[in-house]
Amino acid sequence: MKTELKVEPRTLAGFMELQPSEQILFNQMADKIRSSYERFGFLPLDTPILELSEVLLAKAGGETETQIYRFKKGNTDMSMRFDLTVPLAKYVAQNYGKLQFPFRRYQIGKVYRGESPQKGRFREFYQADIDIIGDGELSIVNDAEIPSIIYTTFRELGFDDFTIRINNRKILNGFFKSLNLVELSPEIMRIIDKLDKVGKEVVTQLLIEIGLSENSVYKIIEFISIIGTNSEKINSLKELGISDDLFLEGVKELEEIVTYIKLFGVPESNFMVDLTIARGLDYYTGTVYETILNDYKQIGSVCSGGRYDNLAEYYTNKPLPGVGISIGLTRLFYQLNELKSIKAEKTSISDVLVISASNDIAPCLPIANSFRNEGINTEVYSGNKKIGTKFKYADRLQIPFVAIIGEDEVKNGTVSLKNLSTGEQKELNISEAIQLLKKDTLLK
Amino acid sequence: MKTELKVEPRTLAGFMELQPSEQILFNQMADKIRSSYERFGFLPLDTPILELSEVLLAKAGGETETQIYRFKKGNTDMSMRFDLTVPLAKYVAQNYGKLQFPFRRYQIGKVYRGESPQKGRFREFYQADIDIIGDGELSIVNDAEIPSIIYTTFRELGFDDFTIRINNRKILNGFFKSLNLVELSPEIMRIIDKLDKVGKEVVTQLLIEIGLSENSVYKIIEFISIIGTNSEKINSLKELGISDDLFLEGVKELEEIVTYIKLFGVPESNFMVDLTIARGLDYYTGTVYETILNDYKQIGSVCSGGRYDNLAEYYTNKPLPGVGISIGLTRLFYQLNELKSIKAEKTSISDVLVISASNDIAPCLPIANSFRNEGINTEVYSGNKKIGTKFKYADRLQIPFVAIIGEDEVKNGTVSLKNLSTGEQKELNISEAIQLLKKDTLLK
Repeated sequence: MKTELKVEPRTLAGFMELQPSEQILFNQMADKIRSSYERFGFLPLDTPILELSEVLLAKAGGETETQIYRFKKGNTDMSMRFDLTVPLAKYVAQNYGKLQFPFRRYQIGKVYRGESPQKGRFREFYQADIDIIGDGELSIVNDAEIPSIIYTTFRELGFDDFTIRINNRKILNGFFKSLNLVELSPEIMRIIDKLDKVGKEVVTQLLIEIGLSENSVYKIIEFISIIGTNSEKINSLKELGISDDLFLEGVKELEEIVTYIKLFGVPESNFMVDLTIARGLDYYTGTVYETILNDYKQIGSVCSGGRYDNLAEYYTNKPLPGVGISIGLTRLFYQLNELKSIKAEKTSISDVLVISASNDIAPCLPIANSFRNEGINTEVYSGNKKIGTKFKYADRLQIPFVAIIGEDEVKNGTVSLKNLSTGEQKELNISEAIQLLKKDTLLK
Repeated sequence: MKTELKVEPRTLAGFMELQPSEQILFNQMADKIRSSYERFGFLPLDTPILELSEVLLAKAGGETETQIYRFKKGNTDMSMRFDLTVPLAKYVAQNYGKLQFPFRRYQIGKVYRGESPQKGRFREFYQADIDIIGDGELSIVNDAEIPSIIYTTFRELGFDDFTIRINNRKILNGFFKSLNLVELSPEIMRIIDKLDKVGKEVVTQLLIEIGLSENSVYKIIEFISIIGTNSEKINSLKELGISDDLFLEGVKELEEIVTYIKLFGVPESNFMVDLTIARGLDYYTGTVYETILNDYKQIGSVCSGGRYDNLAEYYTNKPLPGVGISIGLTRLFYQLNELKSIKAEKTSISDVLVISASNDIAPCLPIANSFRNEGINTEVYSGNKKIGTKFKYADRLQIPFVAIIGEDEVKNGTVSLKNLSTGEQKELNISEAIQLLKKDTLLK
């Protein structure tokens, strides 16, 4: 054996690479998200991971740009996508004439951000996005459908106790306009955002420190103190006595959306108006969403998004309003796994392992075939090993059934099918074995 | 409206980006490949697209290396993967202690090669790979199972008339050893590879030109002239009178594999021994495969691979023999689409579009819910438009059914369900409508 110097096999920091059992679980989650998105009629899209830097970074700047994986190959300046929204904007602008609007698309794919690596932060991660894009206009009903999609998706993922928080940026923007604090609103929002963590008094203090008048601070505290049911909150908003048009439009939209969300079947226990959420500062222009798993509040929002006026303003003059959400699947998986909220239970894709008791593999092969032709995931143990080794392989991979073919079975035209979790073993003819395995396969 | 300068939205040359209807078809193909691979018990794996250059390029060189997308971010020298085999080698070496062997994994993912762009050549493309990795040894039965997987997969993809061509590199290598032509064998193989295109006489001429003796040329021509059924070919090989051990081992393996392939249920019409295929020069050490769609021979092999002695020799001293194949899915899709062998027929994910006849959307929403709760892919037309516009949307997207909710339907607690392909329209209660839609959904 050569003992030459080897390269140490290793994976880049910040890049998730799973064990097979974890990968099975991850894929199950991705499949559930995909089928939920398809349940709502979203079309699939798969844009390249690499784009021209000029195109991808048309809008970017600041922190985003420093995180980009950007390089030249020959004369071409390319970048790896950092989200799925910019490629969507490019796609819709580029294919405008070919698409039907409202254009409903989902995309589940990897995106790249060269952040400083730290626990739970990934440089390569999956996003699972949906967006609905209108041509010039888009009904508010779509804003109400989004929570219904979030609800369906997280129910499919096995969660019951989660809250979709909803706000409308017009309310916030109109409110700040009414206080003549538009310029300061980003800073004020950053302070308000800390409310949950630091409490009302510290927020008051911080607002005074940035130079707000007593009256403004009072109004802001009054605003963020609004509590109650969704309708109570909306009524309180109306009673603030603010006459700003944008504010009133936001309140009206929020009221409508709340009505429609109920009609879309989302229980009141799973959504709430939360006047303090803003979701970034420039992009969203109307409804905004966050989703909190109530048993795991510490991981923050697991599905966020909102309404925007112009998807593709850097590529086209066509006004393309839209509404969308994103699930950061890699981070979600990582966090839930850390918290032991999900557990990789399946360590095998196979329903059955076919083994020879006599080390004559030949009779095993047509039987494996028969199983596979019936859609049963089937593996043949190919090695010439002791029967104990073969069973150990099935045990370690937790393959549910072992089909044993020995001299008797060959003579009788049967298989001995052993259920590894119950230990029960039966000699069955092939079609009986298929029946039993299919029953088990369907029950999964 | 602002008329500022816009960035032209465009996609990099050599990067496939599909229309939604094509994407639906592409995903259907990828899903079929995935489920076929899972039918054979392969475990999923999803390695990063970016790897340390030192790790990814441990083995690479020559043409491969010049095609790599490689760059630095900070001090980290990274490269985008150019295949799925090197990341597998890294993964197996890295996780050796945690894996069960034989380790059967599939991976379907994008790989990157900065080739000169030309028609049908892609710089970003999907590969769909399976490999079976043994720990120190791997039974030849696995080599025979591979054609069974290819057979199942291409049948699932809708093909009947394809041929899996099989050879064994030991036969070729032993044959050249017996002629004392090991050094020249790569060159000779390159010439033999042209046989189909240029014919036997040109091949003879080319072999003479590189300086082979008359006897060697005669032997080579005799070798590549072997015809007949699989067993006839194997008999002819035995009758060549070559006593080289490697050659004889190859013939024995090929004979065994042919026997097992039949037991794995692959019809003789779908596979053949082809003594002229070699699949690259260094990597494969035993069985090699190519797959030809007989109606589309011009596109070359659509699924290739083979047996190798050492998966991960650049990372570990552990001998890890394996056998695997790869489908170049992006290229396959492109070629079949160009040849009109496949056609994007579904332009919508939705089974039904729910529309309001009265522009009161509210009664539509609970009905959409009921459909979705039954697993029916459902879209609600949200815009406040004329009914003709709503139908036009369904028509253009070829959504199979439209559920119309007007004043009568609200009063009666019904929907009017229109089949857009037959034109038939029925007023049904919700559970009848669900029945009808589910029947249609299941028939798809």
